[in-house]
This record gives sequence, C-alpha cells and structure tokens, in this order.
Amino acid sequence: MPLPLKLQKSGQISLQTQIFEQMRGMILEGRLRPGEPVPATRALSEQLGIARNTIALAYERLIAEGYIETRRSVGTFISMQIPEGALYAATHRSVVPARGTRRAKTKTESPGIRSQALVNPHRRRFVADFWVGRPDPNSFPRKTWAKLISRRLLSAGSALTEYRDPSGFIELRRAIADRVRPTRNIATDADEIIIVGGCQDGLNLVSRMMLSPGSTAVVESPCYQGAAFLFESFGANIFPVRVDERGLDCRQLPNAKNAIAYVTPSHQYPLGVTLSLERRLELLAWAAETNSYILEDDYDSDFRFHGAPIAALKGLDRTGRVIYLGTFSKCLGAGLRLGYVIFPPELVDRARHMKTLMNNGQPWLEQATLADFMESGGYERHVRRIRKLYFSRRNALLAALEKHFSGGEIIGDEAGMHLAWRLPRHLPSASKVEKLAIEAGVGVYTLASGAAVNFDASAESERYLVLGFSSLTEREIATGIARLADVL
Amino acid sequence: MPLPLKLQKSGQISLQTQIFEQMRGMILEGRLRPGEPVPATRALSEQLGIARNTIALAYERLIAEGYIETRRSVGTFISMQIPEGALYAATHRSVVPARGTRRAKTKTESPGIRSQALVNPHRRRFVADFWVGRPDPNSFPRKTWAKLISRRLLSAGSALTEYRDPSGFIELRRAIADRVRPTRNIATDADEIIIVGGCQDGLNLVSRMMLSPGSTAVVESPCYQGAAFLFESFGANIFPVRVDERGLDCRQLPNAKNAIAYVTPSHQYPLGVTLSLERRLELLAWAAETNSYILEDDYDSDFRFHGAPIAALKGLDRTGRVIYLGTFSKCLGAGLRLGYVIFPPELVDRARHMKTLMNNGQPWLEQATLADFMESGGYERHVRRIRKLYFSRRNALLAALEKHFSGGEIIGDEAGMHLAWRLPRHLPSASKVEKLAIEAGVGVYTLASGAAVNFDASAESERYLVLGFSSLTEREIATGIARLADVL
Repeated sequence: MPLPLKLQKSGQISLQTQIFEQMRGMILEGRLRPGEPVPATRALSEQLGIARNTIALAYERLIAEGYIETRRSVGTFISMQIPEGALYAATHRSVVPARGTRRAKTKTESPGIRSQALVNPHRRRFVADFWVGRPDPNSFPRKTWAKLISRRLLSAGSALTEYRDPSGFIELRRAIADRVRPTRNIATDADEIIIVGGCQDGLNLVSRMMLSPGSTAVVESPCYQGAAFLFESFGANIFPVRVDERGLDCRQLPNAKNAIAYVTPSHQYPLGVTLSLERRLELLAWAAETNSYILEDDYDSDFRFHGAPIAALKGLDRTGRVIYLGTFSKCLGAGLRLGYVIFPPELVDRARHMKTLMNNGQPWLEQATLADFMESGGYERHVRRIRKLYFSRRNALLAALEKHFSGGEIIGDEAGMHLAWRLPRHLPSASKVEKLAIEAGVGVYTLASGAAVNFDASAESERYLVLGFSSLTEREIATGIARLADVL
Repeated sequence: MPLPLKLQKSGQISLQTQIFEQMRGMILEGRLRPGEPVPATRALSEQLGIARNTIALAYERLIAEGYIETRRSVGTFISMQIPEGALYAATHRSVVPARGTRRAKTKTESPGIRSQALVNPHRRRFVADFWVGRPDPNSFPRKTWAKLISRRLLSAGSALTEYRDPSGFIELRRAIADRVRPTRNIATDADEIIIVGGCQDGLNLVSRMMLSPGSTAVVESPCYQGAAFLFESFGANIFPVRVDERGLDCRQLPNAKNAIAYVTPSHQYPLGVTLSLERRLELLAWAAETNSYILEDDYDSDFRFHGAPIAALKGLDRTGRVIYLGTFSKCLGAGLRLGYVIFPPELVDRARHMKTLMNNGQPWLEQATLADFMESGGYERHVRRIRKLYFSRRNALLAALEKHFSGGEIIGDEAGMHLAWRLPRHLPSASKVEKLAIEAGVGVYTLASGAAVNFDASAESERYLVLGFSSLTEREIATGIARLADVL
C-alpha cells in the first residue's frame, strides 16, 4: 500500500518535515496502526519522486521520537505501543518524592503577594555560581546586535515615536512562525503570535484572560515560582500534580472545568524530565474533556544535546487547547525581555485586546533588531554555537560530579541549561549542602532556592540540588565541584 | 517678622525651588495667612544672605501659581483666597456638556474586553492628520541615541543576559527623581520609582494592586479610553465625574471607600483644561477621607507654553494618597515603551512584587541609554527644543483656525500636543465634520475617535473635536485647516 502523503515541493516547509508530520499525524490518528510495516525508503522515494536521503532523515526523526521502530534485518514498523520511553530520553527511575500526595490549596480571600527570585544576592562573592537560567554573557552577539540596532534606528521613520500594533512587530512574528514550524513542529502563522516581554509577561497575559478568584490552576510539583506565585496572586486555587520520571502524573489531574494547566514538557522545571508521549496525549484529552487550556512553557528546548529536538506539545494539539510560551531569555538573554505566545485561533482577538490594555505592546527597536537577526540566519547560527558550548559545559559538570561523588543521580541532563542532582546518601540535606557550599564560595541551590515551589514538603525533596552550568567555564565548573567535594 | 525658611546651600535642590516650596508649604498649611504681606525681595535677600534675583524668581513662580499676589505700588501679599484661577490658565467658560449628570455603571459579571485605539487606520491617505499624541518623528535624537546605545551595548557585561532589579535600572530611576524634583515639584527618590513599559503598563500595575470586581474607579468624563477600558476589564464600577473649565468637579466625587480616581490634572485628556488649586486640595481631602488613591497621569506636562510649569498634584500631597504616572512616550516616543510610576512609600514593596509577577521588569538596554541621555543633559535640551517646536505648531493651528472659522472656541491650548475645538454653531456635528474631513484627506477627530470615552452622551459633547498638532509642520497645519474650511 502506498502511503497517502501529499507533499508541497515549492512550499516553505521542508519535504523532510512534511513527511515526518504527515506520518506522525496518521499514526496518532490511528490510520497507521501499531505493528504495520512502513514502506522502505527506496520504495517511498520512488513513489514520491524525491531523494531517498530525505525519506531516511524523516524516518530517523520518527524513530528518534518513538513513532516507528526498526527491527534488525526485518524492516521498519509502526511502534507497537505509544512510545513513551522514546520521547523521554533519561534513564532514571524515581525522580519525585514518593510520599507526597496532591494537595489543592483553597483561598477565599485575596492572597498576600509574593514574587519569584530573579537575582542571587550572593553572586559576586562566588568562585563558581551554579545559579540556574543564566546564558553565557560572553556569547551575546554584541557586535552584530550593535550593527543591526544602529541600522534600524537610523531608518526608523516614525516607528520610535508612534504606537504600533500591540501584537508585536509583524516581521518578528513571521520569523518566529517560520522557526517554530520546523524546529518545534508547530503549524502556525504570524496572526496567532503575540510578542511579549518574556515568558512572565506571557503568563501574565494568559492569566489575565483566564483566571479569576476560584479558578483552578494546575501546576507541576515542583514548579517554577514565577508561575505558581502569579496564579496565586489572581486568587486561583493552585492544584499541584506530582512529576515523576515521565513528567506530570496525568492520573492526578483534577476534574475541574475551565482550568488551566501550566507545564514544561520538554525539560521540566526544575527537575529536567521530559513528558512522555502517552502522557502528552492524556493531558490533551483531559484539556478537551474539561474545557481547559494547557500552558506549555518551552523555555529551553533549543538546547537538546542528543537526537532530534522533541516536538512541542502544541504540535500534537488537534483541538486548540494548547497555548505555547516561547522566550528569547535563554538563547539571547533575559535583559532583552522578549518572548512570544502562540494562541489557538479563537483566543487571538481577546489576547490582542488584553495585551493592549496591559501595556500597548513591546518596545519596537529590539523587536526589529531581533527580526533582522533571525531573518539573516544569524540567530540560528548563534543557537547552534551556544548549544555546542553548553554541551561541553554540561559534560564538564557531569565529569566533575562523577569524579568527586559517587552514589548520586543526575536528572534532566539531556537538555537545557541546568540539571538536577539527587544527592548521594552519605551527604547531608540539600539545604545543608547549599549552606556549606555558599560559605565555601560555591553557589549550589535547593529546589526552593532555585526559584521553584515544591508543594510536597517531604524529606525526599530535600535530597535535590539544581545546578546551572551555562554561564560557567569548564574550568570554573571543575573548580567549583572540587571545592564542593572538599567542603563536604 | 522674618520668614522661618531653612535653606540648604549645598544640596541638589536649587535655592529658588527651596524658597518656593517652603513658602508654598507654609501657605497651604495656613502658617502664612491670606492678606499677610510677604517680605520684600531685598529684605529676604539680606535675611538669608542670598542673591535678590533668586528670591525674585521664587516669588515670580509663587505669583504665577497664584499663592501670592502683588498690589501695584503697595507690596506683595499672600493671596486672599486659594487661587484657583491662577493655576488654571485658560479663560474659557463652559467646557463640558451641561446636561449630563454623573452615572455609575455597575457590573456584576466579567465584562467583555475592549481596548483603546492606538493606530489610526486611515493615516497614510491624509494631507494632514491631526491624530492626537504623536511626537514629531523627525525630532527623535537618532544619532545621539545610536551613539549612546552602542556604547552601552558594547560594555553591557551580563546586563543583557541576566535578570535585573524588576523595579528598573537604578541610574534611570535616580535621573528621574532628580528631574521631577525641580520640574514637577515632587520630592521623591529612586526607591519610590518603578520603571514601566509606558503609562499603560503603569496603569495596569496599579490596577492589579488596587482593583477587583466591584471596586470603584473614578474617571474624568470624558477620559482616556486606555484607563476606562482597563478598569472595566478588572470588573471595577466606573464612576465618571464631569470635567468643567476648572477640571474635575469634585462635588461629584463618590462616597465609596478604597476607591481609585484617575485624573489628568495638568492638561486634561482630552479637553486640555487644568485642574484648579482649590479642586486639587478638595481631591486630596477626598482621598484622605475615603482611604482612596489618586492616579495622576501627567502625560504631557513638559509642554507648557506660558509661564512656569504647573506643579504636579503629587507635589501637594501630604498624606501619601497620590500615585504619579510619568511617560517618555510624549517627549521621546511611544515606540520606546518607557514610563515610570512614583508610589507613596507604603506601596512600593507591593508594587515591586507585582511588577515582578507581571513581567520581571523592562528591557535593560533602552533604560540604560535613556539614563545616559538624561544624565548628560541631552534630554533636557531635547525637551526644550521640541517644546519650542510644538509652540510654533500650536500657534500655526490657532492662526489657521482663526483665519478660516469664527465663533468656535479653543480649549486646552496652554499646554500639550493637542487642543480641543468647540465647533462654531453653524457647523454640523463633530461626527459629521470628522467624516467630511476624512473624505477630503484631513484627519480630525471627535472625542470618541480621539481615544476618549465620553460618559455623557448629550448633544453638547458632539460639538468637540480634538486636534493634535505636534507631528505636523506649520505648512501641513495651514493646508489641512484650509482644506477643512473648503469642505465645510
């Protein structure tokens, strides 16, 4: 049976991606069934009249994400089961405190305000500071940026003096749409994108649209403070759901209608695990059933160190329940305050009105500069360059931990700018280790210090440290971990 | 009796300002009583040991604002009554529709979202477009800005890649505090200032802190859409209060506790009148009595064409009830998205937390650039330059209106970037004039089209147009008004 693929040879989307997406769609919809053989690359190449290598690359990606599998010397088949293990690359067992149970917090009065930790007050004193979420400051493309910004500035016309479309600069929105299509598997266009002042501004925008006192906000436990505290400030009931080695435990999702669920599927914050494919589908089904929306925060998915990038949850969404949050704070820097939200079509108008009411949109000049940087290909080169750099730094951290400590466990090191370290049994609690390390001039952080909220206060959660590696040189990493070993 | 003035000769505040402020304080507190003579400049000069000219300038400002008055060949005295007319420079009578009465709108359910008009869709087709709030695009200091921005960029260190204080860049906050002290009479420092993404972001910040469904939000009628629609989106009850020739009619203020009142005392939007001193004091007393806060939006006070600048309402506030909103959208441009909020001390912590939850603060680079521009004195020179330019343009508009139309009335032309024009009786309604003008390629706008909400739908309000003049050349102004006269 030939596969019913329909390829557009002159479109913007590569043939490889088209094949990948269409086959994935057929598998998810059950039109290709588990165990069914897929055509050999040569046969499909002849059927479609395109290079065999293109087909091979599309298959490679389907294999990497677990949709198809190869049986040696037999052939390639649709995977026998939804391949949760394939999406989830880590090999670790129990990530999350086992004793905790979910716990919904109900508030009837306006809560006191608290906000996330952004800046580490100790920073300057450290030999090595493993504070999370810090891009390498020396990698910022200063000269290119200065050149692009000057050019835009001198030809700005009235762009600096007048109000513009509060959704954001159209060229930037187009560049983002063109990028997330192939890299994140999200079929979107500029009209569905709103430029925001970083992920937090996006979360705030969505919260203003969706939350009121008594709303249900599902969060991962542990999760990023900036999300949990924000939802809390709207009077929402926070409903924490445990994360295990396959991500959010979907069996615990609440029955509440019209809820929101804030998740970090690609690289869970702070634990770093990847949400399995099975659970992704469960989560989407839950959202459709309960008329809820999923907020997918894809903060550091550009840094995947092995295999093809994991597709975004939004790429699997067939019912318009996923709101996707992207940021430039990790690939470029938090000082830019630039990010974007991709909305399901029916929410876009409301989002644009709300963004206008909130702040009339983002500054023009850096949006224009970033659009130029993306269109010129400079951004993609920059991402590849720093991915390689962070990969080396991650490896240096893994090597240092292995050299000095045994019996611990590394989690979430497949991607991102930080990893979680389950302390070896012979070491004291995470808080104690943090304290001793800081006294010795090394910054390592408990979940709570690393801007996470842990809703499960069990002793097990006191065994984890988060270690950011992206802003430290390999030498600083080696020195820092050696000193930590000395002090412990 | 020598005046009990205490001057600091080596402080940052000029002697002239110190004298002005201390005498004003004594008058407002009743320590100097109406009719009482003030010392001759020569006598005070001897008492204080400072130049007579400094005293004369301070007196001139007190006279300009109506606190003291000179009786020819007799001497100078404390004004016999609180000099409402002195603060209010216009000489026009009835500004506001007389028939309307206040009208509180009560909402029990979450309202539909609407947002303010930012961009005029017809713009490109026009011979002359009197759209409001547009700075002159050619006056933006492009070259200086490019130089400053490059310098900051190349020496940025980790400022671009990391999170910073969400309150805003400290050097910019200091520069703002140093500027509002002498120009707006506001005694503040950097700690009380939060940098925001323009006035709308500031309004949103305050609204998040203060409003919940059922709160009372007092607004001027007519008022800026961006404020009224925002308050509405929080479920607040909007309580419009009529504006007459002395500004907000304070007798109509509601009894509601814990309300907010959004006002534009320096140059009412859209009508352009100035809130009289008597009413300023009434408004402050109301806020203290009802435990309410006043949001002072001082959007274009840098462009005052006659006399000394009118002091800010916040400068009169002795009880910490005024939140001051400043913006760089008018003096530099809306594309920068930069403004600031000055909070009473007891609200600052809460504001900082809320700003963090909302969006982690503003982008660093343009804050740093603006700080440099202000510190170098370039900003002050820029403001003086464009004030002169806008003064010429305003005069051109007044001349053109006078040449082609008789029997109309000009309101709010003492300051700002736009004025309101009460149409001569023989002309059709404002909507009709707007429509005819647009067909003829001239943009003139009714209150509603000019981003205002008019809560009083009487026929009288249909007699007003708002005309922005700041972005048009004198020739464009003359051509535009001539063509308008032709078409009518």
